Amino acid sequence: MSLARVHNFSVSLDGFATGEALSREAPFGHAGERLHQWMFATRWWHERSGDAGGTSGADDVFVRRFEPGIGAEIMGAGKYGYPGWHEDPEWKGWWGPNPPFHTPTFVLTRHTRPPLAMEGGTTFHFLDTSPADALKTAREAAGGKDVRIGGGATVIREFLAARLIDHLHVVVVPIVLGRGVRLWDGLEGLERDYAVDTVTTSSGVTHLTFERTAR
Amino acid sequence: MSLARVHNFSVSLDGFATGEALSREAPFGHAGERLHQWMFATRWWHERSGDAGGTSGADDVFVRRFEPGIGAEIMGAGKYGYPGWHEDPEWKGWWGPNPPFHTPTFVLTRHTRPPLAMEGGTTFHFLDTSPADALKTAREAAGGKDVRIGGGATVIREFLAARLIDHLHVVVVPIVLGRGVRLWDGLEGLERDYAVDTVTTSSGVTHLTFERTAR
Repeated sequence: MSLARVHNFSVSLDGFATGEALSREAPFGHAGERLHQWMFATRWWHERSGDAGGTSGADDVFVRRFEPGIGAEIMGAGKYGYPGWHEDPEWKGWWGPNPPFHTPTFVLTRHTRPPLAMEGGTTFHFLDTSPADALKTAREAAGGKDVRIGGGATVIREFLAARLIDHLHVVVVPIVLGRGVRLWDGLEGLERDYAVDTVTTSSGVTHLTFERTAR
Repeated sequence: MSLARVHNFSVSLDGFATGEALSREAPFGHAGERLHQWMFATRWWHERSGDAGGTSGADDVFVRRFEPGIGAEIMGAGKYGYPGWHEDPEWKGWWGPNPPFHTPTFVLTRHTRPPLAMEGGTTFHFLDTSPADALKTAREAAGGKDVRIGGGATVIREFLAARLIDHLHVVVVPIVLGRGVRLWDGLEGLERDYAVDTVTTSSGVTHLTFERTAR
């Protein structure tokens, strides 16, 4: 069965997944990269940058679950680009010529454009549709594999509210961002549909996994 | 030195310390007692109820830090009573004739009344004053010991915003309450003044301790 999975989605103690005042120069606004330091310290991240350092403990174990078994990704317009990217016909995402997805990648946006094939197997498809329909499309493209719901917070919240997520991995970083885009809003009682597991690692972050039990 | 300490303060993943629709019948509103199950399972709690059960692991170790070294407590009007308690001259708090504070206990309220001596060493004093002045008064009453800031969320938030808290122990319970009173609002960058430690226990809650480093 093809699952819908969220991985490595970092939020602050007050539940913000990104800051305020997002721009091309500041993709996470005033949050900067403070929510992702735990990830940058892992061996997985270092390997992606072509160097040999990094930690190989629990954070590294979790972060690597991003890839195996994934056949497609769905992301929001706010993950694909800065506010206003749709007015820039040259914009091809943040990730350079070889994005780290390596699968069909569906961007939910009201401003659709033709598919964009990148190096390494990533093709961006632009869809103006509901979460349920996007998931159906992505599942077909995934060829029986799982679909990663890549974020940002608004997209994950919409998929959770529509009860479409099977596996949710959230990383709580012990900082108070104060403002930005919240993950948990409108999801009262979310835990009832899931088995929830929590573990803190030596970096100080807490990994929460929600594994769906009710359908 | 007399510290201002918060202990066993439980919040949901989305940062709510209590629910909505608080009343005499439902002190935590729609949240019920879901934020405190981890505490009820401890040996400490069982001892207070006069029975021999309960767990003696990390949750029990944390919960017991509530008492040692405390010479006074400060609490908000919303912890002392249900909405409207000030119109009930017979209201003496939720805790029966022998409240669990056993020290002078200062209730911040616009509706002051004469001090109320209870069994077991608890005397309620009713103050209409600022957090800083209340802390000064409580410190004098504490005779060199520490002062516990007992909550609820609004009071703790005000004391944190005024930079008056030395030790903050928050327990994050992996549920999404959706509505109620939030702890973290208005506290952007709180972590900068503290050394933060996080640990998850077998009950699934995460204990966060903020130990003040900047003054």
